[in-house]
Amino acid sequence: MTLYVNLAELLGSRIENGFYRPGDRLPSVRALSLEHGVSLSTVQQAYRVLEDSGLAAPKPKSGYFVPASRKAPALPAVGRPVQRPVDISQWEQVLDLIRVSPAHAITQLGRGMPDISSPTLKPLMRSLSQLSRKQSMPGLYYDNIHGVHTLREQIARLLLDSGCNLTANDLIITTGCHEALSASIRALCSPGDIVAVDSPSFFGAMQTLKGLGMKALEIPTDPITGISLEALELALEQWPIKAIQLTPSCNNPLGYVMPESRKRALLTLAQRFDVAIIEDDVYGDLAFNYPRPRTIKSFDEDGRVLLCSSFSKSLAPGLRVGWVAPGRYLERVLHMKYIGTGSTAPQPQLAIAEFLQSGHFEPHLRRMRTQYQRSRDQMIDWVMRYFPEGTRVSRPQGGFMLWVELAEDFDTLRLNRALLEYDVQIAVGSIFSASGKYRNCLRMNFAPKSTPEIENAVRKIGMMIEKMSAQTD
Amino acid sequence: MTLYVNLAELLGSRIENGFYRPGDRLPSVRALSLEHGVSLSTVQQAYRVLEDSGLAAPKPKSGYFVPASRKAPALPAVGRPVQRPVDISQWEQVLDLIRVSPAHAITQLGRGMPDISSPTLKPLMRSLSQLSRKQSMPGLYYDNIHGVHTLREQIARLLLDSGCNLTANDLIITTGCHEALSASIRALCSPGDIVAVDSPSFFGAMQTLKGLGMKALEIPTDPITGISLEALELALEQWPIKAIQLTPSCNNPLGYVMPESRKRALLTLAQRFDVAIIEDDVYGDLAFNYPRPRTIKSFDEDGRVLLCSSFSKSLAPGLRVGWVAPGRYLERVLHMKYIGTGSTAPQPQLAIAEFLQSGHFEPHLRRMRTQYQRSRDQMIDWVMRYFPEGTRVSRPQGGFMLWVELAEDFDTLRLNRALLEYDVQIAVGSIFSASGKYRNCLRMNFAPKSTPEIENAVRKIGMMIEKMSAQTD
Repeated sequence: MTLYVNLAELLGSRIENGFYRPGDRLPSVRALSLEHGVSLSTVQQAYRVLEDSGLAAPKPKSGYFVPASRKAPALPAVGRPVQRPVDISQWEQVLDLIRVSPAHAITQLGRGMPDISSPTLKPLMRSLSQLSRKQSMPGLYYDNIHGVHTLREQIARLLLDSGCNLTANDLIITTGCHEALSASIRALCSPGDIVAVDSPSFFGAMQTLKGLGMKALEIPTDPITGISLEALELALEQWPIKAIQLTPSCNNPLGYVMPESRKRALLTLAQRFDVAIIEDDVYGDLAFNYPRPRTIKSFDEDGRVLLCSSFSKSLAPGLRVGWVAPGRYLERVLHMKYIGTGSTAPQPQLAIAEFLQSGHFEPHLRRMRTQYQRSRDQMIDWVMRYFPEGTRVSRPQGGFMLWVELAEDFDTLRLNRALLEYDVQIAVGSIFSASGKYRNCLRMNFAPKSTPEIENAVRKIGMMIEKMSAQTD
Repeated sequence: MTLYVNLAELLGSRIENGFYRPGDRLPSVRALSLEHGVSLSTVQQAYRVLEDSGLAAPKPKSGYFVPASRKAPALPAVGRPVQRPVDISQWEQVLDLIRVSPAHAITQLGRGMPDISSPTLKPLMRSLSQLSRKQSMPGLYYDNIHGVHTLREQIARLLLDSGCNLTANDLIITTGCHEALSASIRALCSPGDIVAVDSPSFFGAMQTLKGLGMKALEIPTDPITGISLEALELALEQWPIKAIQLTPSCNNPLGYVMPESRKRALLTLAQRFDVAIIEDDVYGDLAFNYPRPRTIKSFDEDGRVLLCSSFSKSLAPGLRVGWVAPGRYLERVLHMKYIGTGSTAPQPQLAIAEFLQSGHFEPHLRRMRTQYQRSRDQMIDWVMRYFPEGTRVSRPQGGFMLWVELAEDFDTLRLNRALLEYDVQIAVGSIFSASGKYRNCLRMNFAPKSTPEIENAVRKIGMMIEKMSAQTD
């Protein structure tokens, strides 16, 4: 990435995160040039990018300002989850979401599906097709339980970008990130154990806790800085917490990237209380800023972080190829992986290894990041236009999920049922809480390129919300 | 299958199972014609097949006899496992087996790999390749958590052959049979629970019990009729057994097909003590006799049988497509499947559905059954020729695994280590017991067509056994 784009993204994210407010004067070209060690013209180019995206406006002789008209929607409030470990509910609601088959008739804004129509995926399809034509051992047999070696090598290289120095032997390939999380949880915890989670939190990992008989302790989470370290510390003092499970980079569903300093502080806390961290990084490669955020794992010195990820968000979920870097828990996670599914299908592993090795992944990621950032802005605009006044939305720094908070007494479960007749679906907020909180919230997917159909779907959701709000009044 | 082949197989299996002994007179042509309602010439044709395979010899004017010279190797003894629930060990030994990558340099007789070189698999590879070329929703997205609907329909049709009347909605697609077993066990049991298993038993299912903190109670198992119902009844009276987990058709590792009457009796026993049965049928479609054996599930009226299977043995393990018919436990198994891996990769499901729908599966199975039956006979011959006198071997009625029992004090763990220098590997017997029994046994794969290389490998194993036996003397 060129220097000016990099700088534009940095400034842009500061503006978006409210570091500079509407009407504020932005740093001078000279100051930025000194601060970042780049030329004046690089800074000028960066400002032109910001101008184009409406984040900065020049005033003659006074430099650049954040446009006063820039209407930044309010952020969701920090959640107030139950302050004790709870049994997890919401399976029925999750089931409603995952029972749906992909169908063209419905505008599915509920599921965590990336856009898979990009031409940058073509080489992957070619590899898959070529491999499938071969009736050969490596593709059709059980592979080594650790997974295809060349793929593990490629992932180890990839992990350098997030600050991790790992080798192929530190990694286990899994059947999606789901299995990585599940095997990690099973390796660390027994029924009755307490796991601290960010809140709102990914429902899949919480259902895993539920299925295995563990309790979740939801920690309040800030929509910009992530899990509250203060609340977490209190919880660690009060409860025998076995592990901390969270998504610190491009969080699902809130979209924040936890600042590096807080990631380090979280690790220190985990060390102090001697608990393990299960770090879900499945959206991490889709951070809009370059370079991508560091993982907590990258600061880990005593192997207590189990880094879980997959190609489900960066390539395609149907490939079912994920991985885990389980640190000191490797042997135990390997056993848990084996008893879950045996070894993972080798064909997609081989195809992805080829895709990475041939250098196709980076251009693909670049393209998707740009697309997702654009469609995020478009989706936020639509939500502001079509949803009732007072609607709060997250400000995703990566990935393709928007978190929307409606009036406190609104029920998105009822909304989603009503939306069925419009062939539109969203993810209801309550599945992101162990105890069914966030009923007035919803999650929307903005992965596809913006189209009139999607705008229309958002408009319908907004109309339905207005209609239902009027009924309850 | 034509009538005479059918009849020849039936008679052949009776001879092989010792129902008719060497020197015995076989039923007359007329008697068989009446008994089976077929023509005299059909019976004569069947006898000619038996003549060719050395199982019957004509005596002028006296009819057919079992050749007196027919040397049937002794069967393995019925095991004497520990008669109480035990914690499962042997993970290190299993790991040795599953850590191996498929490599041409080594003659791998240890793993449960089918022969994947048959031309009857070509249409499957074509479908896979064509599907992979498409960058489309159904192949790359998350599918419905139940699995691809057309595949479930095809499997339901397939299950008719084993006597099951099920619909697509009774089935959940899983990531191999391994996940079917794992999700079933997790759905039924909690840590500390006792599960009764056949002994020897499939190590993968036992390791699942281990990983989930359950105890195994090994039930003595006859190499021809299967799990001892008498011992099982005693165990059910004595212990709070939660489930019975077994492979009654083409058992792994013993190869027997439990007679129908005993399958029914087992179910009655399970009803009486109100326990669930986890029935692993993964080799069931590879039974040498036609029609294939009925499953215990086919007699199940109150939904207590969870039928687990996959295409790993009948097509290829690398596809990782299995299924479970969980009866009354469907909702719970679905939750356990979801928390393990999410939904299963759709591409191989779609390809297999196409393969089944186009009628390619039956001819493929026919071919493989014939091949496996032939190579079974060849492998038994080699073992009898090259292994020490007194070696006992199983008489597999399907699948492609041979169980070999050596002198009581022989250690196959040491043997396998010594075989490394010969580039040959077997599966050690101890992994098939929860408590590490059967150290003097080994399992050998006879799936590939017989070749001089395989004969050579068997010869080397025999030599090494002789050498090690001499050392211990």
